Amino acid sequence: MKIGVDLGGTNTVVGLCTDEGALLCKQGTPTRTGDPDGLRADMRRLALAVCAEKGVAPDEVCQVGIGVPGSFIKRTCTLTFGTNLQMDDVSFAQAFQPEFNCPVYLDNDANCAALGEYIGGAGRGVRNMVMVTLGTGLGGGLILDGKLYTGANDIAGEIGHMVVHYNGLPCNCGRRGCWEAYSSATGMVRLAEAALARGGDSLLRGMKAENGGRLMAKMVCDARDAGDSLADGVFRQYVEYFACGLNNMIAILQPEKIVVGGGLAGYGEKLMSPVRALIRRGLMKADCEQAELVLAELGNDAGIIGAAMLAR
Amino acid sequence: MKIGVDLGGTNTVVGLCTDEGALLCKQGTPTRTGDPDGLRADMRRLALAVCAEKGVAPDEVCQVGIGVPGSFIKRTCTLTFGTNLQMDDVSFAQAFQPEFNCPVYLDNDANCAALGEYIGGAGRGVRNMVMVTLGTGLGGGLILDGKLYTGANDIAGEIGHMVVHYNGLPCNCGRRGCWEAYSSATGMVRLAEAALARGGDSLLRGMKAENGGRLMAKMVCDARDAGDSLADGVFRQYVEYFACGLNNMIAILQPEKIVVGGGLAGYGEKLMSPVRALIRRGLMKADCEQAELVLAELGNDAGIIGAAMLAR
Repeated sequence: MKIGVDLGGTNTVVGLCTDEGALLCKQGTPTRTGDPDGLRADMRRLALAVCAEKGVAPDEVCQVGIGVPGSFIKRTCTLTFGTNLQMDDVSFAQAFQPEFNCPVYLDNDANCAALGEYIGGAGRGVRNMVMVTLGTGLGGGLILDGKLYTGANDIAGEIGHMVVHYNGLPCNCGRRGCWEAYSSATGMVRLAEAALARGGDSLLRGMKAENGGRLMAKMVCDARDAGDSLADGVFRQYVEYFACGLNNMIAILQPEKIVVGGGLAGYGEKLMSPVRALIRRGLMKADCEQAELVLAELGNDAGIIGAAMLAR
Repeated sequence: MKIGVDLGGTNTVVGLCTDEGALLCKQGTPTRTGDPDGLRADMRRLALAVCAEKGVAPDEVCQVGIGVPGSFIKRTCTLTFGTNLQMDDVSFAQAFQPEFNCPVYLDNDANCAALGEYIGGAGRGVRNMVMVTLGTGLGGGLILDGKLYTGANDIAGEIGHMVVHYNGLPCNCGRRGCWEAYSSATGMVRLAEAALARGGDSLLRGMKAENGGRLMAKMVCDARDAGDSLADGVFRQYVEYFACGLNNMIAILQPEKIVVGGGLAGYGEKLMSPVRALIRRGLMKADCEQAELVLAELGNDAGIIGAAMLAR
């Protein structure tokens, strides 16, 4: 048995998985931000609870994995910088002692989600997969030659911070023109705000006003569905940028599958279909296999399963 | 013993290597373009010659590898599309028969160069390495987790066709704004031509005229060394674009080393030093290891050694 923890800024969810990565049950609680001792106690308590729920003894658990939002040192199982958790330099190595006397692994939440989709979701059965998570940011996770790839320093896969527009829009990372600045949900909102600022009639104006002046990516999708032409223009521009970055990932990594998850993936085939139309076959090479663009299947469970399945 | 073939548009060079990838000797001949039978005969003759030179019997050779310029099918050892060789759909599987009754492997020349530098050159001893070759194009090769990475369809690593400037300069591949369009030697010439077209005094005008109206990247470097301010401006612009793409590779792959080869790498530390100054540490993460930017060490031998060391 394996235990996976999805440690989010909002909720801490702990799941019990088989050795093959099938999720048997999960339990969660609001994350105790800013309270490392309380958070560790919650994680241990939930781990014991999911074991009890399935009648599994703690010593039947061979490993625990934790997906964290932030930077970390894998070797020491330490979260070094966790803004959303309001805590820095917290070690989880002993968090499940004394009941769980097994290795504790740690990786970032995007990598865990990628590994989860690879093992039990949309990436099953391929050797190479890129996971793209469209949320507030644009997260990524790389499965290469059948393994989670994290590079020389455990932080590879920051595909959202690939510059696709030299000297373009500023990004939170400090560079300009990052893919994330255009293709995250936040990026779609930014494109929409720019379009609204240029003037023109749109349902988005009313939607935004009703939401206290705050525009959301889902409103762009909803307005487009209602036939709004400004929203449709924003969406087309978004799709162009999104496909541009995907084509970059294909040129560099040629995965069998690209799995798209996150909030914006909820727009489903209405997003995927126009993006697919812009995905290129191999560069200047006619007959090669094309990367397949698919929606993620596991939702939030991907992070739990991936965490449980982490390995050195 | 292993044999590696660097099949170029100009020369065909065959080398004999130890099983560990040390190059013992090499012999070459002008490439018989447009003549598949002649080319195969040359390759076999040279393979026999390098064996004879070192007193090695052909049956002591356990594998032959060929680095080809163009597209190919690894499985059948077939060059499918070789513009520079003026031949398509040529199989090399039987090219070394009957004397060499061993497996024949094939990969593209950029991948072979990357593998050669990884095994015996500037990438020795790391797990993850990106090779960037600055020539007419911008070629790439990826060594990930200790192995040559070629993706789902054998053509991964086309890092030159990563778009870094959305809707930017047209590229030979059909997209716009590819890294190659800015950061290849051809890209440097293009930036220089644009600068000259904007007017201003420069040594480059005389150099270009003396060369029959043809500007070369080396002239930009030479003019800069001579204190030419227009050339210096072009060079600085070039360095910005080059570093932009390198930072993308770091964000995505976080290799220990980035090895720079090709004609422009001949500018040496005068190129590397300003580029290094623009290489970012880990994104928003303070203490991680930084990818090291180094010059290639093996020159043309890298392709021979890498070809010899290809593996399934």
